[in-house]
Amino acid sequence: MAKSNQKSDTQLMEKLVSLCKRRGFIFQSSEIYGGLNGAWDYGPLGVELLRNIKDEWWKAMTYREDVEGLDAAILMHPRVWEASGHVENFTDPMVDCKQCKARYRLDYVSRKFRCSSCGRSVNLNLPSEVMDDLLLQHGKMGADAVADIIAQYHNNCPFCKKEKTMVQQLVCTNCGTVDSFTEARTFNLMFKTYVGPVEDSGAVVYLRPETAQGIFVNFLNVQSASRQKLPFGIAQIGKAFRNEINTKNFLFRTREFEQMEMQFFVKPGTDVDWFEYWREQRMNWFVKLGMPREKLNWHQHEPGKLAHYAKDAYDIEFAFPFGWGEIEGIHNRTNFDLSRHEEYSGKTMKYFDEETKEKYTPFIIETSAGASRSTMAFLVNSYNEEEAPTAEGGAETRVVLKFHPKLAPIKAAIFPLVNRDGMPEIAKKIEQELRPKMRVFYDDSGAVGRRYRRQDEVGTPFCVTVDSETLENQTVTVRDRDSMAQERVGIDNLSQYLLSKVLS
Amino acid sequence: MAKSNQKSDTQLMEKLVSLCKRRGFIFQSSEIYGGLNGAWDYGPLGVELLRNIKDEWWKAMTYREDVEGLDAAILMHPRVWEASGHVENFTDPMVDCKQCKARYRLDYVSRKFRCSSCGRSVNLNLPSEVMDDLLLQHGKMGADAVADIIAQYHNNCPFCKKEKTMVQQLVCTNCGTVDSFTEARTFNLMFKTYVGPVEDSGAVVYLRPETAQGIFVNFLNVQSASRQKLPFGIAQIGKAFRNEINTKNFLFRTREFEQMEMQFFVKPGTDVDWFEYWREQRMNWFVKLGMPREKLNWHQHEPGKLAHYAKDAYDIEFAFPFGWGEIEGIHNRTNFDLSRHEEYSGKTMKYFDEETKEKYTPFIIETSAGASRSTMAFLVNSYNEEEAPTAEGGAETRVVLKFHPKLAPIKAAIFPLVNRDGMPEIAKKIEQELRPKMRVFYDDSGAVGRRYRRQDEVGTPFCVTVDSETLENQTVTVRDRDSMAQERVGIDNLSQYLLSKVLS
Repeated sequence: MAKSNQKSDTQLMEKLVSLCKRRGFIFQSSEIYGGLNGAWDYGPLGVELLRNIKDEWWKAMTYREDVEGLDAAILMHPRVWEASGHVENFTDPMVDCKQCKARYRLDYVSRKFRCSSCGRSVNLNLPSEVMDDLLLQHGKMGADAVADIIAQYHNNCPFCKKEKTMVQQLVCTNCGTVDSFTEARTFNLMFKTYVGPVEDSGAVVYLRPETAQGIFVNFLNVQSASRQKLPFGIAQIGKAFRNEINTKNFLFRTREFEQMEMQFFVKPGTDVDWFEYWREQRMNWFVKLGMPREKLNWHQHEPGKLAHYAKDAYDIEFAFPFGWGEIEGIHNRTNFDLSRHEEYSGKTMKYFDEETKEKYTPFIIETSAGASRSTMAFLVNSYNEEEAPTAEGGAETRVVLKFHPKLAPIKAAIFPLVNRDGMPEIAKKIEQELRPKMRVFYDDSGAVGRRYRRQDEVGTPFCVTVDSETLENQTVTVRDRDSMAQERVGIDNLSQYLLSKVLS
Repeated sequence: MAKSNQKSDTQLMEKLVSLCKRRGFIFQSSEIYGGLNGAWDYGPLGVELLRNIKDEWWKAMTYREDVEGLDAAILMHPRVWEASGHVENFTDPMVDCKQCKARYRLDYVSRKFRCSSCGRSVNLNLPSEVMDDLLLQHGKMGADAVADIIAQYHNNCPFCKKEKTMVQQLVCTNCGTVDSFTEARTFNLMFKTYVGPVEDSGAVVYLRPETAQGIFVNFLNVQSASRQKLPFGIAQIGKAFRNEINTKNFLFRTREFEQMEMQFFVKPGTDVDWFEYWREQRMNWFVKLGMPREKLNWHQHEPGKLAHYAKDAYDIEFAFPFGWGEIEGIHNRTNFDLSRHEEYSGKTMKYFDEETKEKYTPFIIETSAGASRSTMAFLVNSYNEEEAPTAEGGAETRVVLKFHPKLAPIKAAIFPLVNRDGMPEIAKKIEQELRPKMRVFYDDSGAVGRRYRRQDEVGTPFCVTVDSETLENQTVTVRDRDSMAQERVGIDNLSQYLLSKVLS
């Protein structure tokens, strides 16, 4: 489990957030105005990392015969969200502290159990579903009723031995006040806005809280335009928005985020096999891009806790510094989505199989990855601190982002060893030649050791140095980020040498 | 001018919209629910075309030493839009027809001029700024005052010769009623939503109406993280939203759209030269991607009509079927943006020049292209109908999208001539080999002539056919989309042959 060392984990997050800002990976949105909570901007290196992740996903998912791409609008017809269940169900229960006005998602309020007779607090080991239920009933159920439920599991107070005295208390983590909360209200997490100049209910549209629905409603459009036969999938990358009460953990829980979703339409009865197929594909994708398998975890949703549309669901979790966190979900959504859209739109969503002459509503296997969360996971995964020798023979800490070369924002840095003897001219020429083929960076300031460190810190896999030997035999040193080994490569072969390492 | 033949132009748009839907370029958003006005979905081919356009822009704009990339959030701090002037100025005057309740942007209401004495209608040639002013004053000025203004240009009625009798009438194009409009009200074009559960003014955020502000507020963050010196630019691709009263012309005026913007920060005094530099670069970009120069036009904003922030502004216009339409704006924004953000945020936005020890607020040259509008322009530009011979010796109309190969959604199609004799196996093998390198399409259904036409219609530059000669000498025919010429190419060289044509 990832929560091994809380202090160093917190430090790691702080260091990473600081590095991300300083080197231009991630900035706080609207920072000069104090920031906008739950929104982040991708800087010059961040945007390249994000683009590389999205491109790898797009290639893996759509450079195949049986998956088509799509880019649906963020604004959709409001009936979409009635059909999907989001208007009704996409809510969080929410309470306010009457004392300090702090607002909480109910499941984030801390609670304790106390004997109403002797006043002592007790740690209760109630089944988790009972715990959840008690919390959700907060304010709607009298203390007696609560005590009755608790009594089913703890018949009496372990201290004063009185029966049916244990009550639940909710504690405000902000001001410490106990049981001073408003009744829980549901709050819809979709952002709402109005199309046209009149703000009435007929003009309401929502910012999509997921990209999936854009795929479902286009199922038959895509199928007929692309002449696909089942099974086939539709893949999409795009922004989604959720009006989260509590944003947290950097890019992990934000109000604006990007998804990479693929919906695979299959004949009912073949869904279980395809579910397994896509589980394997998606896990492999992360592993191939450099994530160690042991930092990834399968979390299966318990049968009783599946979403209303799901027959089976697994999350791929990554070992973040704050614990395991979901970066992708693979779901067997059954025929729920298409059936609902058929019901709500009055248009058929059935597939006609020309070979068997059957007509049916396909099942859907969904692979839903967070592009923003994956970016954060790849950042965390790449972060390393190592002891490295200094030029003076001592040792120093080397911070190095060990990105897979395909994901690295900068592929190669080019240094003239000194700023004379024709070295800058040769280095500039190499830069010009490489630039149309890959993202490169030219640096001629400071000692070469310092230049290496600057590139290590942003994950550049190769540093090319033009030195005095270059003048003699037209070779340069290529230094590997991870092994720090140096190799001499002819200038003529350099571009091919780097491309083969960076793209494969 | 593009408005040469209105009927055939309208037909062209209808044909294009129909082809876009049928072949999977563009679908109406939420079509099964009757559509959402002003939003469109990019289908399997549309998303590739859009991606190719955006990738070419990204390469042209950021694969250079002096431009950095950025991807800022759509949701920004509301003060950003006060500083930018959008809260105050980004408004349209709007009227409703009292009769039929149709709502119009005031400048889209049709009007006529009529003599209040003899009742006859006249075509008036008033200067356009007087026309605009009269319209904007609608409902705020009495008929006498209007007649006075018109009288300055037309002293009397050309029919009954009475003086000061001409009045303006507004006509509802929906129901035909004359002068039955409400007074003009201003309407802010930004979509508004609320962050957090309480809908009060403190929680208002806007969907950004342009991507530019995300660049301005990050100017110093990017500059220091990337260690750039002036002059340098920041480039960004992203969605923006405008609550347009009237959406129209397919992808041209929509509520949700994508921009490709670059802001180039320069020392004051060098702005005029850089403005010219970027004008040339941007025009060349469209031409290099296959737009004939004569279908592109420079429209300079008249000095009296410049936006409040601009010193000089040119639009690149494309000859759409409905007339010239802006696809990119190049603006000299002066130091307006950074000065305003400095004023509103209280944070310095000045640049310190380490060489000259000067401190100043940079001027900004902006290149602001529409990704959605460019997509439409490239679609329109590519559309051709040609006479082509049929296999039977007759002639038929060939619809062909002549995309630049870099923009074409599918680069090559692979056909086995017949579905036997091992041809499908060889064709499949070729497909497998090409697929990781470029987007390809395999088609084995129908006569080869029909398969050619299907690919012409979506702009695939090359069709590869495996025929009986292939079985003998391991060559295939490669047929060129535009010339329809066929060439025999060895299977071994095919991938290299296609890549060299498709990527250069």
